Amino acid sequence: MEIFISRNIEDGSLLLDEEESRHCIRVLRHRKGDEINVIDGNGCLYRCILTSDNTDGASAEIIGREENWGTHPYRLTMAVCPTKNTDRYEWFAEKACEIGVDTIVPVVGEHSERRIFKPARIEKILVSAAKQSLKGSIPSVEDIVTVKDFIARDADRTKDKDGKVLKLMAYCFEDENHPRTSIKEALKDMSEGCKDITVMIGPEGDFSKEEAALAMENGYIPVHLGPSRLRTETAALAAVNAVYSHFML
Amino acid sequence: MEIFISRNIEDGSLLLDEEESRHCIRVLRHRKGDEINVIDGNGCLYRCILTSDNTDGASAEIIGREENWGTHPYRLTMAVCPTKNTDRYEWFAEKACEIGVDTIVPVVGEHSERRIFKPARIEKILVSAAKQSLKGSIPSVEDIVTVKDFIARDADRTKDKDGKVLKLMAYCFEDENHPRTSIKEALKDMSEGCKDITVMIGPEGDFSKEEAALAMENGYIPVHLGPSRLRTETAALAAVNAVYSHFML
Repeated sequence: MEIFISRNIEDGSLLLDEEESRHCIRVLRHRKGDEINVIDGNGCLYRCILTSDNTDGASAEIIGREENWGTHPYRLTMAVCPTKNTDRYEWFAEKACEIGVDTIVPVVGEHSERRIFKPARIEKILVSAAKQSLKGSIPSVEDIVTVKDFIARDADRTKDKDGKVLKLMAYCFEDENHPRTSIKEALKDMSEGCKDITVMIGPEGDFSKEEAALAMENGYIPVHLGPSRLRTETAALAAVNAVYSHFML
Repeated sequence: MEIFISRNIEDGSLLLDEEESRHCIRVLRHRKGDEINVIDGNGCLYRCILTSDNTDGASAEIIGREENWGTHPYRLTMAVCPTKNTDRYEWFAEKACEIGVDTIVPVVGEHSERRIFKPARIEKILVSAAKQSLKGSIPSVEDIVTVKDFIARDADRTKDKDGKVLKLMAYCFEDENHPRTSIKEALKDMSEGCKDITVMIGPEGDFSKEEAALAMENGYIPVHLGPSRLRTETAALAAVNAVYSHFML
């Protein structure tokens, strides 16, 4: 099933941008009158009939729509420190999208070696991963932020949601004041009806004690991801899998 | 923690091959008398003292050993059809090793596009993944085999182990005769004390009905990996994560 994306949808009809039009018309040789499937990137799938096969900007008439197409039964924010090697982060983003994630936030920790992050490539990767795995919604990628600023910002976002948000921080060091539970247990223990989950994954050098302490003050639960020693991107995907698996029937 | 590997271990001492010796002596500048950590690839870690810093073949005296170093509490065989793009299979192998897998078997299905498999690169990747994730054991990679031959061979391996092996086949199509359960449920339902698990992951084109039927006849349980539509390598890693997470305390 081929999926196109349009950011230009007005009631009843939509326009494909140049890249999508070229792919649809030149590569896949669709012509006026053909039926195509288009997502808006916000969760909706449109069944359409091409009304123009212009390779610079094809247009289509919407004949059907499906909300929450290929969605998942939770809302997951992954705050993950950039990896030294960008490919590894891009790989994580692609796989997380296939499995089910809503927001990816590159966070820079005090022990992070890599402090820059270029979202452009990741956004392209997420669009094709969403199309490929038949999802109407494309995960959003936020601007890079420090771990401490993210914790503060997230505290605002989640306050007054008493118990309806689960915030987890995965770190490696043992902290006698804050014994870690496994992510599996933390998910089991989360309050009834909670579907909004945030997981923070630290850099190779782990979170700093200060970052961990600040997170705990702001309602984060310290978790481990089991006995294996995982690279940042593997740990991040293991967390996405743990959430996906928790909600699996 | 730097880890070296040696396949040449005799009681009391061991030899590093040329590549490992060069890395140890030339790159990391270790000298006679230094303490190094060496795995045998079969689960054992040796603490050693370098007795020669020859860059062609360094030798060391064993002063301590730890069995089952960095092991996991299950035995997992992943029989996964080769992906069109080799990188994706290599990526799966690396991540599966980090999380915990014992054997990887490339299997060719009737709907497989790719029917060849070069193990050499994967074996190198597994060695560095095992070192990097502090595991004494390196997953073995078997020769490529057809799905049907694998099922027959695996039936021999697992017969008479009544209930002590869980065999799962993940496919996408609905089969009224064999309704699928989720891999999570299948793991929950497995018999007490079972730790030996085999999971088969099909090609992009899925398993054929005949392959699925043969698997069922041979004790495989048909499973799905949840609602998301996953690429072969993502499905394979999701299965490894599901097993890892099942045994997580």
